Amino acid sequence: MQPSTARILTDLRNRFVAELTAGAVQERNPRGLYEPVEYILSIGGKRVRPLLALLAARICGDDEGLRAGMPVALAVETFHNFTLLHDDIMDNSPLRRGQPTVHERWDVNTAILSGDLMLIQAYGHLCRVPATERVAELLCRFNRVATAVCEGQQFDVDFELRDDVTIDDYLHMIELKTAVLLGGALELGALAAGGSTEDADHLYAFGRLTGLAFQLHDDLLDTFGDGQQTGKLTGNDIIRNKKTFLYLKTLEGLEREDREELLRWFGQSPDDPTAKVARVTALMQQGNIPRAVGELRDKFQAQAYAHLEQVGGDATFKNILRDLTENLLQRSN
Amino acid sequence: MQPSTARILTDLRNRFVAELTAGAVQERNPRGLYEPVEYILSIGGKRVRPLLALLAARICGDDEGLRAGMPVALAVETFHNFTLLHDDIMDNSPLRRGQPTVHERWDVNTAILSGDLMLIQAYGHLCRVPATERVAELLCRFNRVATAVCEGQQFDVDFELRDDVTIDDYLHMIELKTAVLLGGALELGALAAGGSTEDADHLYAFGRLTGLAFQLHDDLLDTFGDGQQTGKLTGNDIIRNKKTFLYLKTLEGLEREDREELLRWFGQSPDDPTAKVARVTALMQQGNIPRAVGELRDKFQAQAYAHLEQVGGDATFKNILRDLTENLLQRSN
Repeated sequence: MQPSTARILTDLRNRFVAELTAGAVQERNPRGLYEPVEYILSIGGKRVRPLLALLAARICGDDEGLRAGMPVALAVETFHNFTLLHDDIMDNSPLRRGQPTVHERWDVNTAILSGDLMLIQAYGHLCRVPATERVAELLCRFNRVATAVCEGQQFDVDFELRDDVTIDDYLHMIELKTAVLLGGALELGALAAGGSTEDADHLYAFGRLTGLAFQLHDDLLDTFGDGQQTGKLTGNDIIRNKKTFLYLKTLEGLEREDREELLRWFGQSPDDPTAKVARVTALMQQGNIPRAVGELRDKFQAQAYAHLEQVGGDATFKNILRDLTENLLQRSN
Repeated sequence: MQPSTARILTDLRNRFVAELTAGAVQERNPRGLYEPVEYILSIGGKRVRPLLALLAARICGDDEGLRAGMPVALAVETFHNFTLLHDDIMDNSPLRRGQPTVHERWDVNTAILSGDLMLIQAYGHLCRVPATERVAELLCRFNRVATAVCEGQQFDVDFELRDDVTIDDYLHMIELKTAVLLGGALELGALAAGGSTEDADHLYAFGRLTGLAFQLHDDLLDTFGDGQQTGKLTGNDIIRNKKTFLYLKTLEGLEREDREELLRWFGQSPDDPTAKVARVTALMQQGNIPRAVGELRDKFQAQAYAHLEQVGGDATFKNILRDLTENLLQRSN
């Protein structure tokens, strides 16, 4: 990443976090409702979605545009954390970003209600967009995205019990669950800052395709990354029998005997998964699958950049947006 | 209720239910997400909130106003059912309107995610209000109401563990949890139909005060109603040690010995609650508490009507709105 890009992104991230925490110091009651919200929002993350919203706003507006994009940045980050909070209940996850999840630190009921409040707060941020005449349009688009994320989560849950999931099904699921929110952050940021519908649509497409590329990159890191660097258990998707693109693509290419072996491994959850992870990983490599996944990721990313080319507005900030996504796709953690 | 009022309300309710079910026939996927939503919305209820929204819209607009109010009616009913769905998980309730709750018929995870979708759908209805220039205002007001409902639910949960709840605390809690949504249905319906801010504010105040009156009436019915007519277990609030207005008012007026007895009863949950219900009910009657509660209910309702008087617009439909609330407050079931 260019040093100038890194500096600007750090500045944007700081401005965003300052706004995010400004709301929390008001100490609203009942504390049992607001404390978990402040907790989950404070434990951080990379803040990718708000950065996308702010960059899109800066591309389509000027510094004024940045101010107009801030409510969108707050809305998408609050929405994203709402999904994490409720997903963690459903997955029974004990940790989030190295900290206890809300339902662990408090309880399930608290996590349900605080999550509900966060979803409401996300919409609350939207109505603070200065261009009130655009709020109806922003609301419609935000809603389309939010609906898609719920659908994606349900498909993900459904896929665990289905044995007929196709590669197209998987791509559709990650599009809904992950990619559209990145697109949404960008299109809403652009529109809030006065951008044209055309620019907003191209930024949405850029974000959606980038999101697909991100997810494939994540899938690769999960199985082939360096656990030392990712801080995660390598092979976790294999251990949990997740029907990822890697798995489905491998299955598709295997001859009958190997295919049956892979299905057998994915039908069991051994206490010591070492042999399972090693063998499944070998089957994936044997089929040259990591390369195929990497190629599809790069294809999505190239399509994404083609949409970014079509966007008018500030060239410097378009480059920063491109820099940011390239950096995220080259990451090894 | 006037026969003409009953006819008009039935007509409005039918039009509303037709719109509500029109969305469901599209059979959207994944079914595991949408089926529970269609289920909870179809098992009915009195549809009071959408009727309030439609009546406010008709008062402030004409037949065109009614069409403009329909998205608000759908939004408030969907929101209300979202709260029921998540509250039923938190309360671990097996039944809702005589049917299995969503977390019983499906599971908790399905109930969480389907509830989330309903909250999103509620906002989705709002962005279909024809007067797009008013959507920002509608969104802000809807959000204030939705936030209050979450806060009210958390206070209700907190009160179960607190022994210092005052009458003011209780009234504040039911205002948030129940009353503001009735006010919200009315103000949003009015604004969607082109009503003035003044009329919307008066209708909000009318709804909020009516909601307080409703809740006090409900508390009375729970303890002093005829179980044959209400279809509910008489004394249920006493059995569950709910710190209602009735209980708090009784406690306030008791001498030391009786006071300690009441506190003792509310510290236990006997297998056979007959003696408990009988004795607590007697303590309430001894203090003339039902009458005091009835008087406060009537005071709230008189204040509500004073606000309704201030509203301009269609006099016939103002009378219908008054008829409807009077009917709900005279109900014995």
